[in-house]
Amino acid sequence: MKIKLNKDILFKNNLNAQEVRQLLTERGITAFNLMASPGAGKTSLILSALKLINQRVLVIEGDIASSIDTLKIKEGGFEALQINTGGSCHLTASMIKKVISEVKDGPYKLIFIENVGNLVCPAPYDLGENYKIVISSLPEGDDKPYKYPKIFSVADVIILNKIDLINSIDYNYEYFEKGVRAVNIKAPIIKTSCKTGEGLQGWVNWIYHSLN
Amino acid sequence: MKIKLNKDILFKNNLNAQEVRQLLTERGITAFNLMASPGAGKTSLILSALKLINQRVLVIEGDIASSIDTLKIKEGGFEALQINTGGSCHLTASMIKKVISEVKDGPYKLIFIENVGNLVCPAPYDLGENYKIVISSLPEGDDKPYKYPKIFSVADVIILNKIDLINSIDYNYEYFEKGVRAVNIKAPIIKTSCKTGEGLQGWVNWIYHSLN
Repeated sequence: MKIKLNKDILFKNNLNAQEVRQLLTERGITAFNLMASPGAGKTSLILSALKLINQRVLVIEGDIASSIDTLKIKEGGFEALQINTGGSCHLTASMIKKVISEVKDGPYKLIFIENVGNLVCPAPYDLGENYKIVISSLPEGDDKPYKYPKIFSVADVIILNKIDLINSIDYNYEYFEKGVRAVNIKAPIIKTSCKTGEGLQGWVNWIYHSLN
Repeated sequence: MKIKLNKDILFKNNLNAQEVRQLLTERGITAFNLMASPGAGKTSLILSALKLINQRVLVIEGDIASSIDTLKIKEGGFEALQINTGGSCHLTASMIKKVISEVKDGPYKLIFIENVGNLVCPAPYDLGENYKIVISSLPEGDDKPYKYPKIFSVADVIILNKIDLINSIDYNYEYFEKGVRAVNIKAPIIKTSCKTGEGLQGWVNWIYHSLN
């Protein structure tokens, strides 16, 4: 019964995701879905990319509550819309469909979708995005791929953020990478620091390379 | 329909939680439910407490996958049992009831329950514990109470961990505290570092003070 319900929910979600993908294709937009634990640096990575990307970009911010991240993006001089999920621990394709259908501005070449901070719930939900980006941060520890394999398995790229803290924290990168490769053989891993700027150009190069 | 289902799930969970609480009371055990983002330091804080507590303690480790944390506790010379939830993003009272019913060892004075790393899903689930502990770590950022108010609202104590990183990170403690106080007027906030040992005695004192 429970499994059936979940299947129904995911089936409905997938239908909405197909509509989103259709809308994006028609408008020539590439969409990126950023997923990570709370505080891994999703908003900072988006802001860093916005400063380096020479394109008009829309950011869709997903949070249970607050508009803190939308304000941060707007204060940087960029365009953002907030989705508050209420209690839900992930965005759904229907939420994205609603936002994208209503957007009058543009044309945008890229959309960044910042999912709710969570290493579990967003993983199975197709939002109609073109690429799934999973961000892990150094202070979270090197064991995350072993504990949360699903989300690492669906990633098209993995960003290892806050790399500047490498000397302040016990972290075994080989162990992290081994855990990633156990579930995901091909996603590149890009090391970044929004504080020192390390790796940000590589992250932006990956975005450019992925554009439709 | 969805709301009804959630109510049913929580109602069933609460019945199981009452049974857990009854079992714990009969055996004179105080149980603590630790909730936090992935990598906030739950296992390290438990290990630090175990080294300072002069009581027999059982640790119940909740993870989606892996037994990494249970191994860490056992390597420290302490007793731990693993619950793997499969895909679920939180523990339930029925999982705890099953474990506690089957435990033959003891007697234990305390049980630490380490929930799945998640700032959303565990919040509404009563596990039959006596106290809910929410851990936030410095590198997650000072805005977490604003983005995840529910979990901070149910905390009996809040641990602000990895305080040793205060000079490596932009963090406004007053902003964090203001966010906590907006949803939780009375939970003490204890600052800790498992690296330097700062605040660990205060954390253990709080545990002792809370024992039945």
